[in-house]
Amino acid sequence: MHRLATELFPIHRSLTGDGVRKTLEILRRELPALRIHEVPSGTKCFDWDVPPEWNIHSASLIAPDGQTVVDIKDHTLHVVGYSEPVDREVEWDELQEHLFSIPDQPTAIPYITSYYRRFWGFCLSHDKRRTLRPGRYRVKIDSTLEAGALTYADLVLPGRTTKEVLLSTYVCHPSMANNELSGPVLAVALAQWLAAQPQRELSYRIVFVPETIGAIAYLSRNLDAMKRHTYAGFQLTCVGDERAYSYLPSRQGDSVSDRAALHVLRRLAPDFVRYSFLDRGSDERQYCSPGVDLPVASVMRSKYAKYPEYHTSLDDLAFVTPRGLAGAYAVHTAIIRLLESNRRYRVTTPCEPQLGKRGLYPSITAKGLDGDVQALNDLLAYADGTCDLIGLCDKIGVFGPDLVPILKKLLDANLLEPIDSDS
Amino acid sequence: MHRLATELFPIHRSLTGDGVRKTLEILRRELPALRIHEVPSGTKCFDWDVPPEWNIHSASLIAPDGQTVVDIKDHTLHVVGYSEPVDREVEWDELQEHLFSIPDQPTAIPYITSYYRRFWGFCLSHDKRRTLRPGRYRVKIDSTLEAGALTYADLVLPGRTTKEVLLSTYVCHPSMANNELSGPVLAVALAQWLAAQPQRELSYRIVFVPETIGAIAYLSRNLDAMKRHTYAGFQLTCVGDERAYSYLPSRQGDSVSDRAALHVLRRLAPDFVRYSFLDRGSDERQYCSPGVDLPVASVMRSKYAKYPEYHTSLDDLAFVTPRGLAGAYAVHTAIIRLLESNRRYRVTTPCEPQLGKRGLYPSITAKGLDGDVQALNDLLAYADGTCDLIGLCDKIGVFGPDLVPILKKLLDANLLEPIDSDS
Amino acid sequence: MHRLATELFPIHRSLTGDGVRKTLEILRRELPALRIHEVPSGTKCFDWDVPPEWNIHSASLIAPDGQTVVDIKDHTLHVVGYSEPVDREVEWDELQEHLFSIPDQPTAIPYITSYYRRFWGFCLSHDKRRTLRPGRYRVKIDSTLEAGALTYADLVLPGRTTKEVLLSTYVCHPSMANNELSGPVLAVALAQWLAAQPQRELSYRIVFVPETIGAIAYLSRNLDAMKRHTYAGFQLTCVGDERAYSYLPSRQGDSVSDRAALHVLRRLAPDFVRYSFLDRGSDERQYCSPGVDLPVASVMRSKYAKYPEYHTSLDDLAFVTPRGLAGAYAVHTAIIRLLESNRRYRVTTPCEPQLGKRGLYPSITAKGLDGDVQALNDLLAYADGTCDLIGLCDKIGVFGPDLVPILKKLLDANLLEPIDSDS
Repeated sequence: MHRLATELFPIHRSLTGDGVRKTLEILRRELPALRIHEVPSGTKCFDWDVPPEWNIHSASLIAPDGQTVVDIKDHTLHVVGYSEPVDREVEWDELQEHLFSIPDQPTAIPYITSYYRRFWGFCLSHDKRRTLRPGRYRVKIDSTLEAGALTYADLVLPGRTTKEVLLSTYVCHPSMANNELSGPVLAVALAQWLAAQPQRELSYRIVFVPETIGAIAYLSRNLDAMKRHTYAGFQLTCVGDERAYSYLPSRQGDSVSDRAALHVLRRLAPDFVRYSFLDRGSDERQYCSPGVDLPVASVMRSKYAKYPEYHTSLDDLAFVTPRGLAGAYAVHTAIIRLLESNRRYRVTTPCEPQLGKRGLYPSITAKGLDGDVQALNDLLAYADGTCDLIGLCDKIGVFGPDLVPILKKLLDANLLEPIDSDS
Repeated sequence: MHRLATELFPIHRSLTGDGVRKTLEILRRELPALRIHEVPSGTKCFDWDVPPEWNIHSASLIAPDGQTVVDIKDHTLHVVGYSEPVDREVEWDELQEHLFSIPDQPTAIPYITSYYRRFWGFCLSHDKRRTLRPGRYRVKIDSTLEAGALTYADLVLPGRTTKEVLLSTYVCHPSMANNELSGPVLAVALAQWLAAQPQRELSYRIVFVPETIGAIAYLSRNLDAMKRHTYAGFQLTCVGDERAYSYLPSRQGDSVSDRAALHVLRRLAPDFVRYSFLDRGSDERQYCSPGVDLPVASVMRSKYAKYPEYHTSLDDLAFVTPRGLAGAYAVHTAIIRLLESNRRYRVTTPCEPQLGKRGLYPSITAKGLDGDVQALNDLLAYADGTCDLIGLCDKIGVFGPDLVPILKKLLDANLLEPIDSDS
Repeated sequence: MHRLATELFPIHRSLTGDGVRKTLEILRRELPALRIHEVPSGTKCFDWDVPPEWNIHSASLIAPDGQTVVDIKDHTLHVVGYSEPVDREVEWDELQEHLFSIPDQPTAIPYITSYYRRFWGFCLSHDKRRTLRPGRYRVKIDSTLEAGALTYADLVLPGRTTKEVLLSTYVCHPSMANNELSGPVLAVALAQWLAAQPQRELSYRIVFVPETIGAIAYLSRNLDAMKRHTYAGFQLTCVGDERAYSYLPSRQGDSVSDRAALHVLRRLAPDFVRYSFLDRGSDERQYCSPGVDLPVASVMRSKYAKYPEYHTSLDDLAFVTPRGLAGAYAVHTAIIRLLESNRRYRVTTPCEPQLGKRGLYPSITAKGLDGDVQALNDLLAYADGTCDLIGLCDKIGVFGPDLVPILKKLLDANLLEPIDSDS
């Protein structure tokens, strides 16, 4: 995952344009079934119109002495996203309104965009800004902002049932690692792992879109199918650093996505930080919006807008690590394993079954039982069909992925049966 | 409000009689639309009969030496309410059973009544009582206790819908200020404020009755209409002193009255004292009784039976202050403002709307949003039609009266619509 | 109760056999209406088969020097339950696999069984075991393990309605007092008390079975009737010592059995230990199993498997005391008294009734009311038919058995009426 992130890091992504296309092509190399789509500029998507396509070729700021003091060749963050083309000299005072830096983080280049108001600007470290001397500066931004398309990609892995898990991530930020590249590379790793499973109960929809307008465009084309089939969903973002885990619930807060995520986090990362949906900030804003109402939660490492490196050049591939990504991978695969078996089960006979004759119980009884026998007994004692596997695990205090093999033993012995419809 | 209370203070009110009539006449001077009603003695009202009308002309206790030691000319509390007429000498021992004082509050005259058993008696300060010397005393109580009527008044202010807010208070206590005059004068002030509004969403029923039997008589005549229309209700009592706020819930405890009152108190008076309906004591006993089931809560300052001055001559116009009354007025008007907009709202489009093109969103995004934009976003994110405005405010952590102008902006922009029926 | 336990103590009970029969005969002497039933070995009961009948005539272990070192004449616990017949010499090493003792409790004889795997063995104190010297030992177990029957007994006391309370206990343990004799003797005492009541609202089903297979056999014959009629139920076990009370909920946890038990324990034994259904271990495992779903809870003194004397010879008639049994009797009779009146009640008139004219209210009002008048008022104020008597008691904070006479006063005055169907 970290290697793929390294390959994607230097590409100049934005809401639209060739940076997104190039990124999605590289992802298709990893996931050959990935489908890439284009939505023409101006297309109406619910309350929005797809904006013009932006491409940036070069951008530099030249000091009165002729020296180039800022250049996107050095860092993609140096230009304000969606800057309009400019080629002229500006006075020192006017220039100040087009320069962005962070006094408190003097080595960091901030990340700034102006998608829906025509504007231009440069971002630079505050240390660098302090070296600039007053005078007339030359601004050269060679960009295009014209009719084109918005580009996104998706992939559906069918399972035994049409119940679908949505995994969504975004591909519209230039060179930043936790927010955003950790998301797409985790999505790729999960898709590869799912594709390799001999059997899937659930189907999986994996979506790579520019944030906000991309998710809105995607929903405007797929809303009915997604409302009909989506069983659970996760927004994949900020999953690459090594700090505490974070959990952002869906709007409902008690969907199966939330319950599975909480069940797994409580065991694997009990010191996780629990946010409210009021702290939302990524595409769950669209997926959970009233009228869309999908059960989309997020399990993150350091949450966007809550770590100092966020939206600056400090959010880089040293901050995101293989170990950080591996932790997020472990949590998400555990959640998926739990969801795959998450049906409602009922015992097939009144009273306890006789486990002894099936070799499932010790024949000489003294004090106490070992853990697995206890879990098996508890599962049988509570399996009345009223709650799903997550609910059963929470009731009997057993970690879901550990219970799955015991569950299978009881299903094989016909002592339990699923009672919910499975599509 | 304090001036009106001062005017009403000396009038000798009881359950029935000319004191109530005179009080209601003064209130009608302030609220010309007030309707005054009479219910004849003996009228059956559910399980009760309207008692005989009581009028008191004079009452005095004369010592063996001929000196008048107690006289209602000095204080209306000196005679036990509903004392029967007496004119005779009594022995010292018999007299003791007809004298009431409070040893722990030696300067206070207690308030005592005997509405439903024929009796007579005097109330006096314990200091005064200690000066009495044994001997035969002359008792002169010139009262009438005969067929007449029970008097009450009401006022309905119609709004756009027939959904009604009940504001009820009582007018049966002689010279006491917090319990009771603070209630009627607040009711008058709220009625005047409501009458002056250019538009009301809700209708208002404002009721002035003698406590208990008056409320029962009122309900026996208006129960069907009140059950059909009452949306919220508040018993106005003990709203005039400057101590902590008190909240007494309706019997259900989670009615819209309760939710609005709690929402407002948590912001405006966060140190309020929260009582249980088990602590009830005023006409919510009737309004919330099974079979009546109206959602009536009380927001008070010092609650009846919980402050030392209660039901004594110490509950006077020094204890009740203009500032105390103004606080209760502020809380009740905030509650009413919230109720006026308390409908269920739903967004009109899936996904977030594009606020930028409507000038509702900053065009250059960096870190964070200001408070109003955040509140506006949160309102849109949660407005799925499942809960009312109070519920939305509680979810997004915004004070309702502050959210109302933002709500109106979104309604004007057709981004939100109310979805409940409005009558 | 303690005397009856003393009589039953020496009998050699097991799952089946003459010890159970003799025990039930003695119980029938106390409860003439008791019905005794036999279920033939091999009978299919849900997933189980009734095991062969076991009878033990003698069992002894003879040392190489000819001395009898273990003999069930000394204690019924000395032989492993369901030991097959043996009469041979065994080597020292083989013998070790058939001897059971507890190193940490060197004076205690453990209780061991092997119901469903053919086996033989002896139990002895660790102190005794340490005196044995290596060598060939003679094993003489004169038992029979052959087709016969499983024996149980029950008793139904009909009430005004067919709603039934299940009281179940077990009779399959040899000489142990808390687990088990405290259960049957409490069941006998409760049955005698219930039989002596002039009138019962509810019916009572009192069941004496061998644990597990006995309860399963009983359910396999009575399931439909019990599912149709059972209103509440209690497993009676471990009710004889003087330590803290214990509460084990039904699987649902909020059944009327649970609510009545908790209501009573909170008042009579507020320091009780609250267990989870995960800690279950007696016949509630069958009664509460999915598909059976009866509301069976347990109120115990020291819970099985939680006190050191459990399943050893230390669980004797010194550990169980008359005072311990009397405490359990008091709690269970209070629970039954509460259940007998536990209907939903509604007031018969809107607004408060006039209590004064019925002599239910003091005629001169000052500050405050006494406790019973307050309870009566609160009962009337909350009796809206939405919750049962336990719910009302919990709301108004009154101990149920104390409220029953007040409730009867209001029913007699036609101020309250029950509104639920009563069968």
